[in-house]
Amino acid sequence: MTQTGETLEKREIDSVREKPNRIVIVGGGFGGLACASKLGGAPVDVTLIDKRNHNLFQPLLYQIATAILSPADISEPLRRTLGKERNVDVVMAEVVGIDAKRKAVLTRDGAPVEYDTLVIATGSVDNYLGHDEWRQHAPGLKTNRDARRVRETLLLAFERAELTLDPDERHKLLTFVIVGGGPTGVELAGAIAELGAFLLRRDFRNITPEELNIILLEAAPGILSGFDKKLSRYALKRLEARGVDVRVNTPVEAITAGEVTAGGEKIPTGCVIWGAGVKATPVAEWLDVEPQRGGRVPVATDLGAIGFEDIYILGDAASVQGEDGPFPALAQVAKQQGQYLGRKLRGEAEGRHDVAPFRFRNRGITAVIGRNAAVFQSGRFKLTGRLAWWLWAIIHVYLLVNFEKRLLVSVQWIWTFLTGQRNARLIDDKT
Amino acid sequence: MTQTGETLEKREIDSVREKPNRIVIVGGGFGGLACASKLGGAPVDVTLIDKRNHNLFQPLLYQIATAILSPADISEPLRRTLGKERNVDVVMAEVVGIDAKRKAVLTRDGAPVEYDTLVIATGSVDNYLGHDEWRQHAPGLKTNRDARRVRETLLLAFERAELTLDPDERHKLLTFVIVGGGPTGVELAGAIAELGAFLLRRDFRNITPEELNIILLEAAPGILSGFDKKLSRYALKRLEARGVDVRVNTPVEAITAGEVTAGGEKIPTGCVIWGAGVKATPVAEWLDVEPQRGGRVPVATDLGAIGFEDIYILGDAASVQGEDGPFPALAQVAKQQGQYLGRKLRGEAEGRHDVAPFRFRNRGITAVIGRNAAVFQSGRFKLTGRLAWWLWAIIHVYLLVNFEKRLLVSVQWIWTFLTGQRNARLIDDKT
Repeated sequence: MTQTGETLEKREIDSVREKPNRIVIVGGGFGGLACASKLGGAPVDVTLIDKRNHNLFQPLLYQIATAILSPADISEPLRRTLGKERNVDVVMAEVVGIDAKRKAVLTRDGAPVEYDTLVIATGSVDNYLGHDEWRQHAPGLKTNRDARRVRETLLLAFERAELTLDPDERHKLLTFVIVGGGPTGVELAGAIAELGAFLLRRDFRNITPEELNIILLEAAPGILSGFDKKLSRYALKRLEARGVDVRVNTPVEAITAGEVTAGGEKIPTGCVIWGAGVKATPVAEWLDVEPQRGGRVPVATDLGAIGFEDIYILGDAASVQGEDGPFPALAQVAKQQGQYLGRKLRGEAEGRHDVAPFRFRNRGITAVIGRNAAVFQSGRFKLTGRLAWWLWAIIHVYLLVNFEKRLLVSVQWIWTFLTGQRNARLIDDKT
Repeated sequence: MTQTGETLEKREIDSVREKPNRIVIVGGGFGGLACASKLGGAPVDVTLIDKRNHNLFQPLLYQIATAILSPADISEPLRRTLGKERNVDVVMAEVVGIDAKRKAVLTRDGAPVEYDTLVIATGSVDNYLGHDEWRQHAPGLKTNRDARRVRETLLLAFERAELTLDPDERHKLLTFVIVGGGPTGVELAGAIAELGAFLLRRDFRNITPEELNIILLEAAPGILSGFDKKLSRYALKRLEARGVDVRVNTPVEAITAGEVTAGGEKIPTGCVIWGAGVKATPVAEWLDVEPQRGGRVPVATDLGAIGFEDIYILGDAASVQGEDGPFPALAQVAKQQGQYLGRKLRGEAEGRHDVAPFRFRNRGITAVIGRNAAVFQSGRFKLTGRLAWWLWAIIHVYLLVNFEKRLLVSVQWIWTFLTGQRNARLIDDKT
């Protein structure tokens, strides 16, 4: 090797080293994890901060709630995914703010974490439409803890209904109210109908499937509003065939302990579940900027936060300024944005500057109503029924992180499909 | 069919119907569930009462605690096992007493449950040796909730040790104390050593396997006191080879938040787990009789509670009066006693009277120290090492209730064996 070659190489390395090289990613969801993975092995130091120790496959949380899967089946420890990337640190801490002047992320219990470049991928939280007091009576479905809580509430309602001698109390306990007719609400309603029909037919003595009363409340004129009208009507018909009482044009007016008021009617209930939409995590507040619709923070087409040099935002917390407008709050959007940002930041660290704006490649949207019944839509391609259901199952198994999880989830789905049995019918004791 | 035949058949049925026919079983563990299963289809009404909705395979709880399995993998809903037996009712309720005069079981929230024959199979609880105040700092390992709590404490200790800059704090967080050198303590210590070695080598940056400090405290002169001396010495050597600090002749003197005192030494610690033995549930109190050693209630050789006509007690809560003396607190004892009682009560209901005393058929005892290392003993037959480990694994998979669980647990064990990875490394978020 010649002297010139060595010098050139050295100079290139120096020019790389001079770059800002501490990248901090807040949030280990689909977006943050994809970004961190893309930066594995790049000439930067990466720190991924999350208050949980695992990435959660949220689209299947409703299956935890309805006793088909266990939390570990859809949760992947962040250290497991990133453990081999020696330039990526994982920090388990709760972020409470950002000091953009000092370029530091503030955490609840630990020291501030300084960054040169910050990626915010904190996603969204349940949106109680200004009624945060409803939260205690109507859990959402965002974490394993939420899903386990819903599962215990559902199963306990069946146990108590079996024991009570009071017909009003029994009717109340067997009335399940789901708020919101989006994919979460539809999937939950369908899964609860199947769970109830199986359990009450086989395992209980004093209550029958006919007494089950599942009510799906939707403020808009139709369910699955993000889908084609035809698919929405199909979903409605299938839900009704399974005994779900779907009430459209019916906004919720009040939720108290044991009672929901909607469309002027008071509904006594043993279980309310909130699936009526989300809002962004308080990133706008952390950055002291004016939030847009749903609490989202405006970003440029390269996901750079507008008004900040070195902060990027992706996923549910970001609102893109430009031709495409805000993207839907979907896992695939966050994941693609994370991959885009990871590639972009890696390129910059390696001396390449790729300024192509982020483009979303829609992989299609899907919702499952029950066994052999689902809807799938990608552009003008639409599918319903058994084929859509199988497509949904295959896609979701494929998306699970590793081989073992794919195998475990497949076994449990096949078992539930064949027998109706649910593996995860657990109520913990309180002591 | 002749007139005589019809009359005879009718008379037989009447003679059966006149018998006491309401059998109430309290406790859905190995004993109670085996008894209920044997009574399925018999001419009696059976009610199984448990405060949980599932039977728990307690011998594998330490694998929940060390992130190999999920609660649902080793828990079988009682209604699932018994759902098809139309003469068996399952009641989810907490029993708080027995009114032997009124022949009724008292529950916390519900109505008393009346019986003609009562089977008590409530097992045992952790025995804190008169120091119940230790419980809050040193959870035992009796329920899924306990095991999940231990798992979260262990995993959080690693996370906090990774973040702290204080070497004393780090040393404290990485010191795990296990109280009791019986099978539970030995299995936990071995499994924590393997978990720690794998995680700290691969997934953490600031802490190393050498900093791990696992202390097993045993008051007696040796561990695994129920086993042959040779096996006990083998277990000790294997644990020490895995880095466990085994301290025999070292009784615990005090447990406070973050500190254990034993053998005169104060040990700062991030996690204490209690595995130092059990005592019977308060059955003696319920029946107002004088308990024997470990809180057990004296029963005759047919498991009938002494002094009561119609109450039987089995498993950890019973102490047999007779040639065999009390049986060890083992799942196999409870299960065999449950089967024996089920057969006996079924026989009586069908007009047969089998008064043979219960006989225990020892299937051998086993404890696993880690991968490829276990001990197995059955009478004079002894086995250690790889073969004992495989025998242990095969027996435990075989004992799991249904095909699906066997398959799921096998997949996870094979995966962990091959890769060292643990599927269930979950810390729930608190919100």
